[in-house]
Amino acid sequence: MAIHRHFDEELDLLKQKLVFMASMAESMIYKAVKSLTERKESLIAEVNEDEEKVNLLQIEIDELCLNLLALKQPMATDLRFITSAMKINSELERIADMAVNITQRASGLIKQPQLKPYIDIPRMADLAQKMVKDSLDSFVRQDAELARSILTRDDEIDVLKDQIFRELLTFMISDPSSIPRALELILVSRHLERIGDHATNIAEDVIYLVQGKDIRHHIEEQRNHRK
Amino acid sequence: MAIHRHFDEELDLLKQKLVFMASMAESMIYKAVKSLTERKESLIAEVNEDEEKVNLLQIEIDELCLNLLALKQPMATDLRFITSAMKINSELERIADMAVNITQRASGLIKQPQLKPYIDIPRMADLAQKMVKDSLDSFVRQDAELARSILTRDDEIDVLKDQIFRELLTFMISDPSSIPRALELILVSRHLERIGDHATNIAEDVIYLVQGKDIRHHIEEQRNHRK
Repeated sequence: MAIHRHFDEELDLLKQKLVFMASMAESMIYKAVKSLTERKESLIAEVNEDEEKVNLLQIEIDELCLNLLALKQPMATDLRFITSAMKINSELERIADMAVNITQRASGLIKQPQLKPYIDIPRMADLAQKMVKDSLDSFVRQDAELARSILTRDDEIDVLKDQIFRELLTFMISDPSSIPRALELILVSRHLERIGDHATNIAEDVIYLVQGKDIRHHIEEQRNHRK
Repeated sequence: MAIHRHFDEELDLLKQKLVFMASMAESMIYKAVKSLTERKESLIAEVNEDEEKVNLLQIEIDELCLNLLALKQPMATDLRFITSAMKINSELERIADMAVNITQRASGLIKQPQLKPYIDIPRMADLAQKMVKDSLDSFVRQDAELARSILTRDDEIDVLKDQIFRELLTFMISDPSSIPRALELILVSRHLERIGDHATNIAEDVIYLVQGKDIRHHIEEQRNHRK
């Protein structure tokens, strides 16, 4: 029976579950954006099914963390690792929610003529997916360098978001009939931006975890100054 | 010296700090929306100063929780209480971030002529503030009934958000020069909506904590079905 696993094995199991959840979230982002760009209703349904699985996984991971805290009473490093895992778990669940939100926009948009070729939205989605993947890799490998690279990429996402906004604004001003579709596309770009934010939250947790001091708001301040 | 406080006293301290953080977040929402409706630049600066205090408070509360987990090695109920406090801490910090985002929109809007009288936005803000307050009260008093009332109010916020969206869409279509301002106002309403979402997350944590079973996604499903 596996009830008396060693603590290290339990931690490995926790990592595996989180990596699996992240890979589901990534694939949901991919499918959600593809449902829009390739106008595929079937992918919208898939994302909604995936979300239910992610929700169950979130509860499972939460319980695993609580059990580890209660039964093993870990100290210092392991304690921080487990509480970080709980935070990352929430972030991943929200990333999955954002993918669902994108499909809600897609579901209206694919019933209407396409406003413009989609170029920047798939680019944003690629960036966001990669950020999610790397944020989890940085957690598993305790790699602060990789985590730090995610903070820079979040700025790239913001640049694309602003670009999309300006372009769609031009569409709306020159052709009012484009406004409802343009607004939906702006919201898609905001959902992708938020995925980048969640991956950044994970990366900041990892840096905090590795360095053992709270740089979260310090980084935030630096980034605000750069804006 | 206060180092050897009793566990219950430490838990009370934790509650007090969270309630204080929530009251700061509330007041930030209030000031942010007032900076827009009364065109007051000084309030924008205040919200930004408040955010720095909230960030420090978040770190302080996080450390307090980690210390409680490490030094007291609490079991069952207390353990869940402390891990809930950590989640609530993150939610409150994000609520404060949303208030800052509102001031970023306000800062552009108050330099231009006002597009329309602000009626629904202050109403959304009132609702959101009250939800934040009640979510923390429900946590401190372990009041699942109060927490449940917050879920209903989140639906009211969504109704207002849709109302604002439709109204501003009409503005944009009839007068393209209104588009940039209308978009900013739509974003303000989205930030307020997200504040409602964060308060709802807190309320769901409280229900979970009080009932000891995970109803989070169950509730979510019910709400999706109602839509």
